[in-house]
Amino acid sequence: MFARLTVTMRVPLTRCLLGSLRGQPGQARALFTLQDHSKKPSSVPLTKESFKQLRRGDFAEATPDDLSKLKELVKGRIETDKDDLLKHNCDWMRTLRGSSPCVVFPKTTEEVSAVLKYCSSRRLAVVPQGANTSLVGGSVPVFDEVIISTKELDDIIDIDADGGTLSCEAGCSLKTLEKKARKKHLFFPVDLYIREAQIGGVVAADMAGPRTARYGNLHGNVLGLEVVLPDGTVLNSMSNMRKDNTGFDLKQMFVGSEGSLGIITKVSMACPPRPKFINVAMVYTESFDHVLEIMRLAKEQLGEIMSACEFMDNDAVMSVKQKHLTMWGVPSKPYYVLIETAGHCDMHDEEKLKFLFNLLKDKELIMDGQIGPLNYDDPTFVERLWNINGRILTALSSTGNVYHYDVSMPHSKQYPLVQKLRQEAGSDITKVASFGHLLDGNLHIALQSESFSADTLDRLDQLITENVTAAGGAVSAELGCGFKSRNLGAHCKDPVEMKLMRDVKKMLDPQGIMNPYKVFPDSQ
Amino acid sequence: MFARLTVTMRVPLTRCLLGSLRGQPGQARALFTLQDHSKKPSSVPLTKESFKQLRRGDFAEATPDDLSKLKELVKGRIETDKDDLLKHNCDWMRTLRGSSPCVVFPKTTEEVSAVLKYCSSRRLAVVPQGANTSLVGGSVPVFDEVIISTKELDDIIDIDADGGTLSCEAGCSLKTLEKKARKKHLFFPVDLYIREAQIGGVVAADMAGPRTARYGNLHGNVLGLEVVLPDGTVLNSMSNMRKDNTGFDLKQMFVGSEGSLGIITKVSMACPPRPKFINVAMVYTESFDHVLEIMRLAKEQLGEIMSACEFMDNDAVMSVKQKHLTMWGVPSKPYYVLIETAGHCDMHDEEKLKFLFNLLKDKELIMDGQIGPLNYDDPTFVERLWNINGRILTALSSTGNVYHYDVSMPHSKQYPLVQKLRQEAGSDITKVASFGHLLDGNLHIALQSESFSADTLDRLDQLITENVTAAGGAVSAELGCGFKSRNLGAHCKDPVEMKLMRDVKKMLDPQGIMNPYKVFPDSQ
Ligand SMILES: Cc1cc2nc3c(=O)[nH]c(=O)nc-3n(C[C@H](O)[C@H](O)[C@H](O)COP(=O)(O)OP(=O)(O)OC[C@H]3O[C@@H](n4cnc5c(N)ncnc54)[C@H](O)[C@@H]3O)c2cc1C
Ligand SMILES: Cc1cc2nc3c(=O)[nH]c(=O)nc-3n(C[C@H](O)[C@H](O)[C@H](O)COP(=O)(O)OP(=O)(O)OC[C@H]3O[C@@H](n4cnc5c(N)ncnc54)[C@H](O)[C@@H]3O)c2cc1C
Repeated sequence: MFARLTVTMRVPLTRCLLGSLRGQPGQARALFTLQDHSKKPSSVPLTKESFKQLRRGDFAEATPDDLSKLKELVKGRIETDKDDLLKHNCDWMRTLRGSSPCVVFPKTTEEVSAVLKYCSSRRLAVVPQGANTSLVGGSVPVFDEVIISTKELDDIIDIDADGGTLSCEAGCSLKTLEKKARKKHLFFPVDLYIREAQIGGVVAADMAGPRTARYGNLHGNVLGLEVVLPDGTVLNSMSNMRKDNTGFDLKQMFVGSEGSLGIITKVSMACPPRPKFINVAMVYTESFDHVLEIMRLAKEQLGEIMSACEFMDNDAVMSVKQKHLTMWGVPSKPYYVLIETAGHCDMHDEEKLKFLFNLLKDKELIMDGQIGPLNYDDPTFVERLWNINGRILTALSSTGNVYHYDVSMPHSKQYPLVQKLRQEAGSDITKVASFGHLLDGNLHIALQSESFSADTLDRLDQLITENVTAAGGAVSAELGCGFKSRNLGAHCKDPVEMKLMRDVKKMLDPQGIMNPYKVFPDSQ
Repeated sequence: MFARLTVTMRVPLTRCLLGSLRGQPGQARALFTLQDHSKKPSSVPLTKESFKQLRRGDFAEATPDDLSKLKELVKGRIETDKDDLLKHNCDWMRTLRGSSPCVVFPKTTEEVSAVLKYCSSRRLAVVPQGANTSLVGGSVPVFDEVIISTKELDDIIDIDADGGTLSCEAGCSLKTLEKKARKKHLFFPVDLYIREAQIGGVVAADMAGPRTARYGNLHGNVLGLEVVLPDGTVLNSMSNMRKDNTGFDLKQMFVGSEGSLGIITKVSMACPPRPKFINVAMVYTESFDHVLEIMRLAKEQLGEIMSACEFMDNDAVMSVKQKHLTMWGVPSKPYYVLIETAGHCDMHDEEKLKFLFNLLKDKELIMDGQIGPLNYDDPTFVERLWNINGRILTALSSTGNVYHYDVSMPHSKQYPLVQKLRQEAGSDITKVASFGHLLDGNLHIALQSESFSADTLDRLDQLITENVTAAGGAVSAELGCGFKSRNLGAHCKDPVEMKLMRDVKKMLDPQGIMNPYKVFPDSQ
């Protein structure tokens, strides 16, 4: 018999996808390698030094006069102190460091508009910054761009419980929004990996996670945006309506634009009713074919209540500290599948999950798993199982250097690629661990070596880009291009699409002052 | 006790939102009035005659030489016979008639590209046409535009059951796609009102329905598009990946662009697992406040299995033929709510719906309703209940002239507007009937009069536009602007947004040959 689980969506909160490790920064084509978030920003080399081949754009340099003008425009909310600026100049992974002379904190759309108008008239380059948790270096200056933080734009505008919509300013954190939505029995449909991430940054980065397949992506869920264009013009595309077909849906251009087309100042989101009960099961199996068969049966049996289906291989799980595995009762098995349900009736959900578990056993698809009263009695069971998944990268990076890739691929081609990498990645790669969000074909591959080598990185970049592209996949599934993967797009995108991207950029930002050196490849 | 329902998603097939009626065509600001689909196209006045103030754009006229050149480019697949052309020149509602000299039927992307390249070089205006079911006159020529039909682009490219994706050419009908998806246990996430609609037209029109809240909108579900731009360039934005963040998501520009930016030739869609069981309940209640409370409780109790929640008022339901109402056991009640569930376990779904029904009774929110063994024994019960909803407009239009509006509004303001219209719509309005898709705040208002009057239409347009806009709603929820509502956008949209729309149009279609006289207001 199952004990009732009333844990309500606290699951992702403790999930941390990335952790600390040794390594060196600064590869132009790096998808990314993991660095040490706890490292002092001041110890990070300046990006302009690491990337000597990169040329500063034809922008003005901010003069003392500019700084006092900007200060005026944001009513004193400006930071110019070198030390205090460090955390804004340096990225979350501590691999990049810009040299911006200031960060401004506008509190209203009008102030954002005034700042951009001024910067535009002076041809000063700018970089929009939310919580600065970008993993691709999108949110930090490369040279001396003026940083525009949305931190002070933190008002909730409206929550319509009946309509299932929430509108707010861009600087509201996911943590706040989740809390506000929860109070109205709504679910804020963005995975809460990193609670401080701000909705403006989240929308600009088109953030996604394991539950995207269930709750939909941001292109579907964003109902309205207010955006300040590079010249300071305010584009009001706000709406709380779930259906509006009066004209082109222009706000879509800004979802995933990574700060290179304008500054998002307001967001309106569709929020579904909040599920009341979360259940989870971890099962062990012998082959990747079985993993896929488990996913199929889980979809068939759980249907609309399934909220995540995560796969991990032995190398991934066994990298987690043994004491944790023992404590949580996780043995060494070839493959693991973590299944999460989120529904409105605990009895029904448990019955479905239990039925699935027995079915998988009857069909001899699983060796065993964690489901049932023994573990369900523990109220933090759900969180602990997710913890394993969330600890993989941190664990791997604590014992070596990690090259991490986040790709999308058809399921049948995923594990063959992992196997191929085990054969062809080169002798310095000691471990190839993989795990993924099965519901949307999103695979994480972490290749461990003793130390970092630029040659290895280049080889891996090429090997993975070639194989993923040939399989019709995407080389950046979730994280975007930003600065680190800016040269990647051109390898994978149709040239016509690249040209159109440049046309859109030129139309909205003719001077190119918005977040330069990002998204677009260097040669363009 | 409930009998088991195994009806699988046949529900929307017979649903027909609009029907025949008397009336006159041709109001520039008309949202739309209902006309007679069974009317002979040849009896419909030419659009250029009905809209005398409209000026033909500065385009070339197709010469016999052009026609033979086009014929060559599409390997003979061209229609130039005046009679056979009629159904392509005339819209579904029989209100508009263009004077195109030809419709071409390209069979490959290359042919579409060759046709557009040619038309572009000759400055010939074109109109893309799918199944020509647009209700806003988007798919027919206004003057003598060349019609490019996607009918022959009808190949399925790939269905990935594991990934939950389907890719196909733009001319595939919803009926075909639904069938193909069903075979792989997938659900094609577009409401099947009008089975012949083609996926290219559906995406171009950003079609939506009562189940959009459950299955997501097209901006979220379209994963990839191939589009031929007005100059013949092929933009390949196809992808079967649910996650791809390498660069801007440009394909979004074409979702809802109503044929004015390019011709969609291929589409890739995310498809969820197909629900196995459909249940439905119809309940009767005393006030609109109760309607909303029923919706709230339904969301709370049914959660993820709810697939539609439709409201109808007495004027709407009582317009349906009495013999049907009697046959289906539907009494005269102030308000009706139709609740549909789609799930993976019949027992669980029925239990939830039954629990809700009893809860509504206990709380004295409903007077009665249709749920339980008596009606559930009838296998077509589901379809019949939907039929009532679907027959309202047809019924109303068979006994008078109907002015029909399709708006989005916050729930609390919906019925007050209907009441206001009853007071202020004028003495020639004999009935104001309303019904809507509660889950996304989409309200249909049908105002009946004895005969059509342009003055009344103008007055209603203004009354509704003002009230809906003031409430933060959208005056065109589902149907787009096309030709009929082209002057509407400017009334409701931010001028900056209108300018940006024009900039996007100019960027992609500098000569303006793509579907002219549509989407944009006349003065622009
Ligand atoms: C531990 C960890 C785990 C993560 N896991 C995931 C994951 O699973 N999936 C995922 O998708 N991401 C993940 N991320 C990346 C990151 O959290 C997301 O990209 C998030 O959306 C960034 O939000 P932010 O407020 O920090 O934005 P920032 O990092 O400040 O900015 C992100 C980008 O958007 C731009 N930007 C910021 N605000 C605005 C604005 N208002 N208007 C316009 N542009 C703006 C910036 O210039 C930058 O290009 C993870 C990050 C960390 C540290
Ligand atoms: C009875 C009835 C009920 C309806 N109910 C609804 C409803 O509830 N919700 C709703 O949203 N719509 C509804 N519609 C409207 C219509 O069915 C939809 O808009 C549908 O998407 C149109 O598909 P189609 O293939 O007929 O496209 P068409 O009518 O041929 O074209 C629609 C628009 O898209 C353009 N277009 C067509 N194909 C392409 C292409 N390949 N590339 C670029 N542009 C293209 C056309 O130029 C036109 O502007 C209804 C229509 C009818 C007749």
